[in-house]
Amino acid sequence: MNVNRQFRLARRPQGMVKREDFAFVRGPVPEPGDGEFLVRIAYISLDPAMRGWMNEGKSYVPPVGLGEVMRAGAVGEIVKSKHPKFAVGEHVVGLFGVQDYAVSTGKGVTRVDPTLAPLPVYLGTLGMPGMTAYFGLLEVGKPRAGDTVVVSAAAGAVGQVVGQIARIKGCRAIGIAGGPEKCRYVTDTLGFDACIDYKHADVKKALKQHCPQGINVYFDNVGGEILDIVLTQLAMHARIVICGAISQYNATTAVKGPSNYLSLLVNRASMTGMVVFDWADRYAEATRELAGWLTSGRLKTREDIAEGLEQFPEVLLKLFKGENIGKLVLKP
Amino acid sequence: MNVNRQFRLARRPQGMVKREDFAFVRGPVPEPGDGEFLVRIAYISLDPAMRGWMNEGKSYVPPVGLGEVMRAGAVGEIVKSKHPKFAVGEHVVGLFGVQDYAVSTGKGVTRVDPTLAPLPVYLGTLGMPGMTAYFGLLEVGKPRAGDTVVVSAAAGAVGQVVGQIARIKGCRAIGIAGGPEKCRYVTDTLGFDACIDYKHADVKKALKQHCPQGINVYFDNVGGEILDIVLTQLAMHARIVICGAISQYNATTAVKGPSNYLSLLVNRASMTGMVVFDWADRYAEATRELAGWLTSGRLKTREDIAEGLEQFPEVLLKLFKGENIGKLVLKP
Repeated sequence: MNVNRQFRLARRPQGMVKREDFAFVRGPVPEPGDGEFLVRIAYISLDPAMRGWMNEGKSYVPPVGLGEVMRAGAVGEIVKSKHPKFAVGEHVVGLFGVQDYAVSTGKGVTRVDPTLAPLPVYLGTLGMPGMTAYFGLLEVGKPRAGDTVVVSAAAGAVGQVVGQIARIKGCRAIGIAGGPEKCRYVTDTLGFDACIDYKHADVKKALKQHCPQGINVYFDNVGGEILDIVLTQLAMHARIVICGAISQYNATTAVKGPSNYLSLLVNRASMTGMVVFDWADRYAEATRELAGWLTSGRLKTREDIAEGLEQFPEVLLKLFKGENIGKLVLKP
Repeated sequence: MNVNRQFRLARRPQGMVKREDFAFVRGPVPEPGDGEFLVRIAYISLDPAMRGWMNEGKSYVPPVGLGEVMRAGAVGEIVKSKHPKFAVGEHVVGLFGVQDYAVSTGKGVTRVDPTLAPLPVYLGTLGMPGMTAYFGLLEVGKPRAGDTVVVSAAAGAVGQVVGQIARIKGCRAIGIAGGPEKCRYVTDTLGFDACIDYKHADVKKALKQHCPQGINVYFDNVGGEILDIVLTQLAMHARIVICGAISQYNATTAVKGPSNYLSLLVNRASMTGMVVFDWADRYAEATRELAGWLTSGRLKTREDIAEGLEQFPEVLLKLFKGENIGKLVLKP
């Protein structure tokens, strides 16, 4: 407990993120001031959204400044405190960044209970990805029992939860994922009705086969080609939830717009963007319901845990190469 | 009253519609059978949607078959009747096709009152374009007083009504149209707050200027480049109504998808397709309200009347060249 290692943003990446886009620095462990506490980070969340935060320009949050610690969600234990409401030994989640230790005022920080679920789950199914799946599917996608719900990146942190909630709500869940191992996880472990391996199958043909009545809800995490194919298979009044577009985040050319968007017209369908922060006042409600399903075994979750803070750039790349199954986290 | 002239679809157009895509034929005026009546067509509606009806393949209505009379809305007078509910001398609107006379069973036919408004208005502001504007804006766009509503093809049959309804509902209305004459019509006659001439202005800069708080509702009739620019200027929770995409209907290459669609995510915005037929059971309500506004002078309408049935292919092209102001109709 002498050194705090950090990844700081050194330059704005062009295309795929590289190690040289960061500075890996070592410094003293900071001391919390009055009204602050010190967290020893146990797990760091690696999210596709981090790629967007590295870019210049307006988005739903400000970009990470050059020279700043790379922004990341993380979970850890409070090891020092001068804060009246946070005590040493408590476990907390917050935007603590890619480092070993963080000082916090408690703003945006949530207590978590390590006896209810392992700590990494609080970065996944009981964290932002779980909230995103819960509110994106239920509040934006508005599935009805009997609907066919398709989700891309189905073996990822958000996708795995989306399909399982769809099943719990009486829908058919069809995943799209890359490779046979992920697809087996999606059907055999998570219980989706089917999973389409986009690397080896004709996605359009497979969607026709698995969604003979068309797609009622599409929860999109990937954008690009797959979004365009899904648009050709919509049911009337379909709802597309735009949660992300991981296929486009490292693009150095213009984003590929969905050429088949006029299918929205033909099918009186909608495409709606969502950012999970808008439901912050209902996180507690969603957490309770998700935790209940986890406890009862109706909801499965998997975390893909990489080790070694110094590996951060390479581990982050696993996301964009589609190499993780379940929620990707880094144990410093 | 001896000859019925008709335009029949001879082949499926490639790119822009050509005269050779049709057969211009003359035949005897048909006789209505039992339960049918004969309409002498007074005005034929020319609509962007007609281009889509000429294509092979599934859409929201079946395509016009090769050899069939080209589908078109029209208004006319009943000149013979063997129908118990339709009498000679009544005026009716229906899908009577591009011809001088049509036999009808009354299916999909609506009586109109030529003393309330001139007949061409029943193909425009009191017809499908008016219904499209009314339900598309109010039910899909859901404008609130104070919102900024942007509409493309603002001097067209639908656009002219959209912006005026927006104003009636207490919104700011910004049009986009091609050329100074159309823009003057939109601002000076229709009373929009501004109109952007996309042929001569920097549309992005002009939208920034006229929509400093961002765009709350965008009613899109054109697609393509303009849709993509609008996406960069959305307000939070903006609603985009996808009514049409006239810029793309004659494209021989793939439709240009909106590259900036991830703005939907950042702004928690939606893009929803609409087809007016879904509100058929409420046309009477909309017609009453629109007619009321017309009578009181709050709603202006303009029809662009071309003459000569034999000119049909060239007149239709005026739509795609953006040469009409107001609702384009053909007087046979």
